[in-house]
Amino acid sequence: MTIAQDDLNLNPAEIEAALLTLGAIGAHSQTGVWRRVYEPDWVAAQDLLQSWMVASGLVARLDAVGNLWGRIDGRDGGSAVVSGSHIDSQCPGGRYDGALGVLAALFAVKALVATYGPPRSPVEVLSLCEEEGSRFPKAGFWGSRAITGRIAPGDADLVQDEAGVGIADAMRAVGLDPLRIEDARRDDLAAFVELHIEQGPVLQDAGLPVAVVTAITGIRHTQITLTGEANHAGAFPMDLRRDPMAGFAELTDRLIGHAHRLGRPAVTTIGRIAVQPNAPAIIPREVRFTLDARHPGPDDYAALHRTHAAMLTEVAARRGLTLQTEVQFDLPPTVCAPAIVAALRSAAADVPHMLMASGAGHDSQQMAAVCPVGMIFVRSKDGRSHTPEEYSSLDDIMLGIRVLAGALYRLAW
Amino acid sequence: MTIAQDDLNLNPAEIEAALLTLGAIGAHSQTGVWRRVYEPDWVAAQDLLQSWMVASGLVARLDAVGNLWGRIDGRDGGSAVVSGSHIDSQCPGGRYDGALGVLAALFAVKALVATYGPPRSPVEVLSLCEEEGSRFPKAGFWGSRAITGRIAPGDADLVQDEAGVGIADAMRAVGLDPLRIEDARRDDLAAFVELHIEQGPVLQDAGLPVAVVTAITGIRHTQITLTGEANHAGAFPMDLRRDPMAGFAELTDRLIGHAHRLGRPAVTTIGRIAVQPNAPAIIPREVRFTLDARHPGPDDYAALHRTHAAMLTEVAARRGLTLQTEVQFDLPPTVCAPAIVAALRSAAADVPHMLMASGAGHDSQQMAAVCPVGMIFVRSKDGRSHTPEEYSSLDDIMLGIRVLAGALYRLAW
Repeated sequence: MTIAQDDLNLNPAEIEAALLTLGAIGAHSQTGVWRRVYEPDWVAAQDLLQSWMVASGLVARLDAVGNLWGRIDGRDGGSAVVSGSHIDSQCPGGRYDGALGVLAALFAVKALVATYGPPRSPVEVLSLCEEEGSRFPKAGFWGSRAITGRIAPGDADLVQDEAGVGIADAMRAVGLDPLRIEDARRDDLAAFVELHIEQGPVLQDAGLPVAVVTAITGIRHTQITLTGEANHAGAFPMDLRRDPMAGFAELTDRLIGHAHRLGRPAVTTIGRIAVQPNAPAIIPREVRFTLDARHPGPDDYAALHRTHAAMLTEVAARRGLTLQTEVQFDLPPTVCAPAIVAALRSAAADVPHMLMASGAGHDSQQMAAVCPVGMIFVRSKDGRSHTPEEYSSLDDIMLGIRVLAGALYRLAW
Repeated sequence: MTIAQDDLNLNPAEIEAALLTLGAIGAHSQTGVWRRVYEPDWVAAQDLLQSWMVASGLVARLDAVGNLWGRIDGRDGGSAVVSGSHIDSQCPGGRYDGALGVLAALFAVKALVATYGPPRSPVEVLSLCEEEGSRFPKAGFWGSRAITGRIAPGDADLVQDEAGVGIADAMRAVGLDPLRIEDARRDDLAAFVELHIEQGPVLQDAGLPVAVVTAITGIRHTQITLTGEANHAGAFPMDLRRDPMAGFAELTDRLIGHAHRLGRPAVTTIGRIAVQPNAPAIIPREVRFTLDARHPGPDDYAALHRTHAAMLTEVAARRGLTLQTEVQFDLPPTVCAPAIVAALRSAAADVPHMLMASGAGHDSQQMAAVCPVGMIFVRSKDGRSHTPEEYSSLDDIMLGIRVLAGALYRLAW
């Protein structure tokens, strides 16, 4: 079954206006937003989306953790096909990261219902909360973790923002009961399809507007500490030094070089470093740094970490350095559901597109614990994101929404 | 002419007591000192040394910048043979760095006068001020720079401590007139001989108590900034990155590796780094770091910097990074005067010793602008310095003072 996408009433001017209206809530730096979960701008944004859902004929409700759902029942009942993303932003972030996926789902469902009537399966539009962890750094994917039952009782008591406000108090302040978080759990979902900006330069580099995502990368963050011996930079000969900066440099050169040799989609980043005592004329005592290593292939992901561990152990031992490693988090790769990938590819038959893996983490990774997932990427100008400068053209956005609508049609109508 | 060193009245107990008494002024962390120029503990230490000089038969005076001189005239007049070091410390430093050289000069001269009477040439014991720059970071070698005329009119107005106190005000507070700094200049010096702890592990590694220094290393501090493009650690493929951390790692590995291959006495240290934005999941935009590069051979020193400049240029260009370099200071190598090295080697004929270059900077480097210089090193336990843990044994110290006394005898008696 195919869908004549030009039949859908997708109005670019209306979609652009919605993006700007939503982006005005928490507006920052002309083109950006600063919208953190459970703060007034976030409440206002969810209220606005709720009114748009209702106006589109959906039944809207806020769940126990603050995710907003807009539902239309299906003729045959059963599990729901869901589409959406998040509306919390980085500080500051852009108008597109997250929010575009919520609006895309809303306009796609609205157009499908207008053209084809009620769906066969229930369909829900979802606006998730605190994907970024931009207010509560330990609460990334808070909304999708609640839906998948991954927030344990008591977790809310362990999470604070930088001002010391606990997430439980922040929830109560907007009328949510942290003791009811587990009520947000869903076990009746048939699929989750998320449209998102790419956040990287691959589509721009390839000259394509959209991509069908085949997998979401595995991400492991490890904090590594190399300890040697601080000494006088002039009086200690090279051959008697135990210099953790020398070990760090060799390791970083090899870790990054290894990812270069593997090629796409492997990436490895050393983004943060702290040196003690960090003085020009003192050989450092300690270098602490973060290793962000990603690969979307489960076997490649495991192999990457084995290689890294071997490099760390070998270099530290050879240089007489003490090595400590702490895995700060480890999100294994998520392979997108073949049936959803097929629906997306079919819907994108007349849209220039490519297949790619996502190098960034997304709510879909969490949602994969309870249902099959798939994603669509829309080209990001210069690959920028997490900045007010992020931008996707309206032409690219419209193509992305058409692919999303075509896939939802195939899955639910 | 030889000297029967056992004839000298060098009393270890007296010297140890003097070290402890002086070290009690500004005592810190049981075995350390915290003694910064123009502060009360520094004034008290100079006062104590002045009283000891007078008690030893020397004519003592504070010069215009706060250096303390203790003089005995020579039978033949002429230029003075000077020995000493500094009594300001790191924060905290140890009891030996600097202070030992002042006491060694005082006890050597006292013993020589007691045994052999007044010298042929004038002899002066010197306690220099603010060698470390530990109170005024821009005023390292302040005392020796005054003696050599290297403090320009107005320089005192440019120097502040971290509390914002100007060095001119700090001088006035202890009765010194900053407008008279140039009065401290000396052009009547025949030699400067400085005993100092090694501050490195070379003597311990070699199993020797003392060394005769042949040269003082050249030191260049360069601040280097590599700028690339900050981007998402997941969404940017390796092949599209301009990652200054990758450039930093390759450069540091090569810079340090080059010094290893050159071997002693070349040293290269990367001690300080600052990364922007310094976040685990963001490819850095900027890495700024310091390069401390030293060699005591004038030709080798120049070659080292040429090699470093070529590495920096090549790596930055290949990786598409912007390179900025700023030489923060550059002290060329100082070759010790052959006549003084010969006097020291002759005096050390029956003391186990080696020849070595100093990898640390010393007042002798400055003094070399106005007279021939030489240095003696005393073994440092584990090569430690600039810490309360620095330690040299009394046995090693006594051997060092005997070598110093022997050299001063050869130069001035």
